Amino acid sequence: MATHKLLLLPGDGIGSEVMAEVKKVIGWLDAQGLASFAIEEDLVGGAAYDSCGQPISEEAMAKAFAADAILLGAVGGPKWANVHYEARPEAGLLRLRKDLQLFANLRPAMCYPALADASSLKRDLVEGLDVLIVRELTGGVYFGEPKTITDLSDGQKRAVDTQVYESYEIERIARVAFELARTRKNRVVSTEKHNVMKTGVLWKQVVSEVHGSDYNDVTLEHQLADSCGMQLVRAPKQFDVIVTDNLFGDILSDVAAMLTGSLGMLPSASLGAVEEISGKRRALYEPVHGAAPDIAGKGVANPIAMIGSLAMALRYSFGLIEAADRVEAAIAGVLADGYRTGDIWSEGMTRVGTAGMGDAVIAEL
Amino acid sequence: MATHKLLLLPGDGIGSEVMAEVKKVIGWLDAQGLASFAIEEDLVGGAAYDSCGQPISEEAMAKAFAADAILLGAVGGPKWANVHYEARPEAGLLRLRKDLQLFANLRPAMCYPALADASSLKRDLVEGLDVLIVRELTGGVYFGEPKTITDLSDGQKRAVDTQVYESYEIERIARVAFELARTRKNRVVSTEKHNVMKTGVLWKQVVSEVHGSDYNDVTLEHQLADSCGMQLVRAPKQFDVIVTDNLFGDILSDVAAMLTGSLGMLPSASLGAVEEISGKRRALYEPVHGAAPDIAGKGVANPIAMIGSLAMALRYSFGLIEAADRVEAAIAGVLADGYRTGDIWSEGMTRVGTAGMGDAVIAEL
Ligand SMILES: CC(C)[C@H](C(=O)O)[C@@H](O)C(=O)O
Ligand SMILES: CC(C)[C@H](C(=O)O)[C@@H](O)C(=O)O
Repeated sequence: MATHKLLLLPGDGIGSEVMAEVKKVIGWLDAQGLASFAIEEDLVGGAAYDSCGQPISEEAMAKAFAADAILLGAVGGPKWANVHYEARPEAGLLRLRKDLQLFANLRPAMCYPALADASSLKRDLVEGLDVLIVRELTGGVYFGEPKTITDLSDGQKRAVDTQVYESYEIERIARVAFELARTRKNRVVSTEKHNVMKTGVLWKQVVSEVHGSDYNDVTLEHQLADSCGMQLVRAPKQFDVIVTDNLFGDILSDVAAMLTGSLGMLPSASLGAVEEISGKRRALYEPVHGAAPDIAGKGVANPIAMIGSLAMALRYSFGLIEAADRVEAAIAGVLADGYRTGDIWSEGMTRVGTAGMGDAVIAEL
Repeated sequence: MATHKLLLLPGDGIGSEVMAEVKKVIGWLDAQGLASFAIEEDLVGGAAYDSCGQPISEEAMAKAFAADAILLGAVGGPKWANVHYEARPEAGLLRLRKDLQLFANLRPAMCYPALADASSLKRDLVEGLDVLIVRELTGGVYFGEPKTITDLSDGQKRAVDTQVYESYEIERIARVAFELARTRKNRVVSTEKHNVMKTGVLWKQVVSEVHGSDYNDVTLEHQLADSCGMQLVRAPKQFDVIVTDNLFGDILSDVAAMLTGSLGMLPSASLGAVEEISGKRRALYEPVHGAAPDIAGKGVANPIAMIGSLAMALRYSFGLIEAADRVEAAIAGVLADGYRTGDIWSEGMTRVGTAGMGDAVIAEL
C-alpha cells in the first residue's frame, strides 16, 4: 500500500483542538489498514511567529513542498494584532497558497438535513442546499503589486492595493469550475463586477470564451457580485457552481457557508494544477471556519469541518474513495445519532465537546 | 416659501416607471402648498447613451451641479452590454458620484413589520431590523488608477484595478458614521480586510483614531468583511451602523437589503460634504434596487423605494421634516392597508402594479 505524505499544520486558536480529533481518525485508518500515512507536523500562523518570528518557517515550507497533501487548522487571532504586516499569521497561509500555486479553492456549502433548522433561513430555502464555490486563490487583490502605505504631507497617508488578473489565471479556474459542474448539476454562475472593474471585464470575457470553446454543454450565467450576494440570501438553491475571484470568493463563500447553518461543518480544498507526468496535484485542506479565538482552548469547537477536510484529502489527493466514504458516513451518522457541539446544538440533542465529537466519529467508524 | 431645485434622472429599466409615481407625490406636495419645487429632468445611463453617445451629457452634469438635490431611478441593462467601457450606463452614475463628491452613501436596511414574512430569514431574526450601512462612495477600487486591460504576447491579457484610500477619505466617512450612530443606537461596526489589504490596514487605523479622539462615547467594533457578511446572515440585529469602503459596501449593503425582504422598499442617500458658508451639501437619492430590465415596461415594479428616496430628500436636503414624515407615514399606511406589488405580495393581500401603488400612496396622503 502506498504511503501518503501528510503534513499537519494546526495553526492558531481552535486549530490544534480540531486537529487533535483528525489525528484520532488518521490513527484509526492506519490501524485498520485502510490507509498508510507518513505524518509530519509543523507550525503556521501566530504559533509559528511566536516560535521563529515568521508566520511559516522555511523548514515548514520545505515539508509543504514534499507533502502529498496538507491539512491546516486555522490562523490568526488578536494576540498578533500588532505584529508587522509581513509577519502577521495570515501571511503564513497566504504564502502556502501562493508558493504552492493552490489556485483552485473549492468551498462546498451543503446543508446537512439534520441541521437545516440551524440555518437563519427558512427551512425550505436551505433544505437540500448544495452549492460549490470555486474561488480563485492565488491572484487578485491578495497578491497584486503595488500594495503599499505611503506617508504624504501633514501626517496623511495613502494606501494602495492592486487587483491583477491575467487571462490564463481566469481560464484555469474557469476550467476547474466547468469540469466540476459536469460532475454535479451542470450549471455555473460566474461572478464579478464588470460594470466597475476592468478585472471584471476580463473575467467575464475569458469565462465566456472558455465556455464557448469547450463547455457548451454546461449552463453558464453571469451575475454581478452584489447581485450574487443578494441571490444567495434570496434563493440559494438556484446555484450549483459559483466561480469567482479571490476577494469576492472570500466574502461570498462565507455568506454561503453561513446560510447552511453548518459553518463548523464545512471543509474546503485548495488545489494546484495537475502535473503533466505524475498526474498529481498539490493540495491543502482546511475548514471554512476560522481560528475562533473566543472559544479557543475551551474544548467546545466543532471538529467536523476538520475531519471532513481529511475526507476530502482521502478522496481528492490519495484516491482512497472507500476510506473517504466511510469517514463522511461516520460524520452523517453521529449527526443522525443526535451528537452536537455547541455551535449546532438544539433542544433534545446530545451536547458534546470537541473530543466527545471526535470520539463519537471514531465509535461510528 | 423657498423653491427647491430638484433634478430627476429616471435612467434605465424600471427607472422611468418608478419616477412617474414620485412625480405624482411631488405634484401633490406642490398642490397642497407643502413644498415648492423647480423641477428639471434629464437622461442618465443607457438612455443618455442612446440619445447622445455619453452615459450623461454635459448639460445634465450642469443641471446636477445646479440642483439642490437629485433623484435618480436606476441605470444599466443588457441592451448596453457591448457599449465601450467608458460609455457604459453605470459610468453616468459613477461620474455623478465622483464629480459631485458624494462620498457618503447611506443605505438603511429596515424590515417593515408588515413585510417581515417576505424575508428569507426566520421572522425573529429580522423583525424590527434597522441597520444603516454607511458606504464610502467616491474612492476605493471604483476610481483608483491604473485601471487597465493590456495585451500581452500570445493573445494573453492582463487586467488591473487599483484600490486607493487616503486618510482624509476614511476620516470623513468615519465621522459621518459616528455622527449618525449618535442619533441611533450609538454603535458602529467598521469593516475591511486588514489581514489581506493595505487599504484595510489604513482603514482600521484611521477609524480607530477618529473614534479615539472624538467619538469615545460611541461603541466601535472592527469586523473583517467576510465575517461581517456571515454575521449579517447569522444575526443581523447585532448591527446598528456599519461603515465600510466602496466595494465591500456595494456587496454588504445588497446582502443587508435582501435580508429585510423589502428590497423594492429601500431608499438611499449619497451625500457630499457640508459647505462652510451655505451649510448645504450636495445630494443624490436613489433606490437600492437596480434597473431590473427583466420587469421593465410591465408596470409591476415597486415604486416605494423611489418614493422613500424623495422622502429622504425632503428630510435631509430641504429640511421639510413634516412633509417627509407625511410621505413616510403614507408608505407605512398603504402597507398596513394590504397593498402589495408583486415583489412583496403574499396570500390575502391586495395586488397592485406600479401606478396602483403610487395612487394608493397619494390616496393615503
Ligand atoms: C485568513 C484569511 C487570510 C483568509 C482569506 O482572506 O482568504 C480567510 O478569510 C479565508 O477565507 O480562507
Ligand atoms: C450600478 C453600479 C455601478 C452600482 C455600484 O456598483 O455602486 C450599484 O451596484 C450600486 O450599488 O449603487
